[in-house]
Amino acid sequence: MKPKLTNPKSIQVGLLGIGTVGSGVFNVLQRNQGEILRRAGRGIEIAMVADLDTARAQAAVGKDVQVVADARAVIANPEIDVVVELIGGYGIAKQLVLEAIEAGKHVVTANKALLAVHGTEIFAAASRKGVMVAFEAAVAGGIPIIKSLREGLTANRIEWVAGIINGTTNFILSEMRDKGLDFDVVLKEAQRLGYAEADPTFDIEGVDAAHKVTLMSAIAFGIPVQFDKAYVEGITKLGAQDIKYAEQLGYRIKLLGITKKTAKGIELRVHPSLVPAKRLIANVEGAMNAVMVHGDAVGTTLYYGKGAGSEPTASAVIADLVDIARLHTSDPLHRVPHLAFQPDSMSDAPVLAMGDVVTSYYLRLNVADEAGVLAKVTGILAEAGISIDAVLQREADEVGGEGSTQTDLIILTHDCVEAKMNEAIAQMQALPTVLAPITRIRKEELN
Amino acid sequence: MKPKLTNPKSIQVGLLGIGTVGSGVFNVLQRNQGEILRRAGRGIEIAMVADLDTARAQAAVGKDVQVVADARAVIANPEIDVVVELIGGYGIAKQLVLEAIEAGKHVVTANKALLAVHGTEIFAAASRKGVMVAFEAAVAGGIPIIKSLREGLTANRIEWVAGIINGTTNFILSEMRDKGLDFDVVLKEAQRLGYAEADPTFDIEGVDAAHKVTLMSAIAFGIPVQFDKAYVEGITKLGAQDIKYAEQLGYRIKLLGITKKTAKGIELRVHPSLVPAKRLIANVEGAMNAVMVHGDAVGTTLYYGKGAGSEPTASAVIADLVDIARLHTSDPLHRVPHLAFQPDSMSDAPVLAMGDVVTSYYLRLNVADEAGVLAKVTGILAEAGISIDAVLQREADEVGGEGSTQTDLIILTHDCVEAKMNEAIAQMQALPTVLAPITRIRKEELN
Repeated sequence: MKPKLTNPKSIQVGLLGIGTVGSGVFNVLQRNQGEILRRAGRGIEIAMVADLDTARAQAAVGKDVQVVADARAVIANPEIDVVVELIGGYGIAKQLVLEAIEAGKHVVTANKALLAVHGTEIFAAASRKGVMVAFEAAVAGGIPIIKSLREGLTANRIEWVAGIINGTTNFILSEMRDKGLDFDVVLKEAQRLGYAEADPTFDIEGVDAAHKVTLMSAIAFGIPVQFDKAYVEGITKLGAQDIKYAEQLGYRIKLLGITKKTAKGIELRVHPSLVPAKRLIANVEGAMNAVMVHGDAVGTTLYYGKGAGSEPTASAVIADLVDIARLHTSDPLHRVPHLAFQPDSMSDAPVLAMGDVVTSYYLRLNVADEAGVLAKVTGILAEAGISIDAVLQREADEVGGEGSTQTDLIILTHDCVEAKMNEAIAQMQALPTVLAPITRIRKEELN
Repeated sequence: MKPKLTNPKSIQVGLLGIGTVGSGVFNVLQRNQGEILRRAGRGIEIAMVADLDTARAQAAVGKDVQVVADARAVIANPEIDVVVELIGGYGIAKQLVLEAIEAGKHVVTANKALLAVHGTEIFAAASRKGVMVAFEAAVAGGIPIIKSLREGLTANRIEWVAGIINGTTNFILSEMRDKGLDFDVVLKEAQRLGYAEADPTFDIEGVDAAHKVTLMSAIAFGIPVQFDKAYVEGITKLGAQDIKYAEQLGYRIKLLGITKKTAKGIELRVHPSLVPAKRLIANVEGAMNAVMVHGDAVGTTLYYGKGAGSEPTASAVIADLVDIARLHTSDPLHRVPHLAFQPDSMSDAPVLAMGDVVTSYYLRLNVADEAGVLAKVTGILAEAGISIDAVLQREADEVGGEGSTQTDLIILTHDCVEAKMNEAIAQMQALPTVLAPITRIRKEELN
């Protein structure tokens, strides 16, 4: 069966940058062109590619596609309908995206950093010119989470979103748990296997996840992108013993990007979190991603898949191209708004400072193994109005070896406001019987 | 902040039937009207409701909404843009949907039975009239699985879809496993709790799941809906001991709707399946739904949430209404095709008979506890070219009590074609040492 063209004019696409993701886009479009044509009703063709390494680019796309070194030649080409930006970063990518919009091109990008920081400016420019800026590939790779949030759950007042949205850190945490190893050891292994970059800072410090959760907070709640207000804490200080203790208490530790609507404002935060082991998301292992969305009508939903890689990310880029193929002739007012809500209907709900966030906690205190320590510690928490959910006290011998005079005291608390917890931790830290810096990991029930 | 209207004309909706789902649609639209308006750029209003029980209907929607007993009065009303069909079944619902299409109304329906059986006729009528027939609510309640398959994964050659798409049976299987109880006992409990209907046939015999997987097969592969070709097997014959043995072998038993593209044709089947316990979908408990989709570019993705209930289903109905509000002024050729592929580009790949399906198996044979039985059974399998993955032989005492002369022999096989397995089972059944009907459950690795 030969696919027929509903509309004989193919969408002409210009790629800016053809590395891992760009090659994936080219290869998948080639391989599945029949299938995609049968869905979209018109072809989608990569007509031009800009890359500084023209030789490598030409080798990737073959001799039938025009390759240039100058991205502006793509933007200036009147035949090009859509510009796909795969350069990354905030620098030249921002300039080129704005120029493409100014030239009346629709834009598809996988650049979460750019949109999380400069999205307000970029989406406003796109609205003025009546073009689409699509970014499914910017969050959770091939999982259609942007579409689900922006179109699939439109009936709902979204209450919270929580996701494993960085594969590198989830791989590291899975390995730490499986093998009982410390962070540094596993990071080196992850680098060797290609799961972590040579400079892994953006991943392990939580910055990449914060870019992504910033985008999700905007489309979930109809607020502007506000990366600068996100609380960001990575996984570099996690010890193997905390993963083990969490396990004993029925929890796993995951790096979550969380955004939540409360009466006081919007929570926007990335940090390691204890999650009940029985939740599906606690069982997402290796480099996989998963995002939970809780809406008032639908309840809790979850979306799982590969969050990175050449073809999973290409899957999202091409889905955006098909959307554009379907919608680009329609009235801009009838398209899906960039940030899910109409630009004139954005909310001014403030993003809360971390001190104002309410959550529950896991605390690990390395204490002297003597009478009265637990009473002092729990006294401080009681004084602060923080109630205790569970206490796990280790035998000194198990923690410090035979004859040890110190031990670990693990406390799970109920919900309290972070500022109060900060004060309580400072007071506990000042006790002479507390022998090392207190470890504090937030706990999310996600039900 | 007061939401502003991008377009002052609200979409006028007529509901046919206002039971559980209809009330949910009305209540969620009321409660979240500000949020929905900010997203859609125009209001969505229920202007008219038809229900035979007009008094109950009027009580549900209040006095500002016109209530009639005659559904045709809604269809005839020129003010109505969209008709939402929530009557269910193949009878009058089919007639009314066709009449609404003929009257130029867009249609939203949660009626999987209707679309799985009469979808070809209904979608053809809608294409002729240039109206949309949206059915997100027909599969997996509030989970946006239709949108994900039809729009989110357009880049992919979909290879298979497998889902827990019937909450009643998943609740029953979860309870059987948790409590070690037999099917009949748990069914009664499920009926008492409202998880199963008074006449649960459609659920427990797999018919409801088959309706849903039929719809997913069409949009995944671009084939017509072909419910009559689906293989359908329910959970009524599952014993508690099979769930226990599966567990010992590292598997859970779930009722899956499966559709898969193979070189010979499309598999379309519903039956209990062993699934590795470590898969996320094996851990979907109670009345929850989850659908796995495997695409060649994106790999395996999973979508999880509530598959039924008033507001989760309403969430899907309203998402469709917002899509229609956004797209109804656009050229029909640019909309998302009803079955994901352009109507002139459907595939004629055949749906395979169950005998032609290739899968692996769990077999339980109740056998005489004497020498040579295992050799005879495995000899038959070897003769048929079916290779064995694992064997679990129980002590006779454990199975039949002290002094018992019979025992259970459990065999896991590798992949083979079902027709061959049928022959082998017939031969094994004929052995005098095989004392009871052989239990056969299919096994899916889902990786």
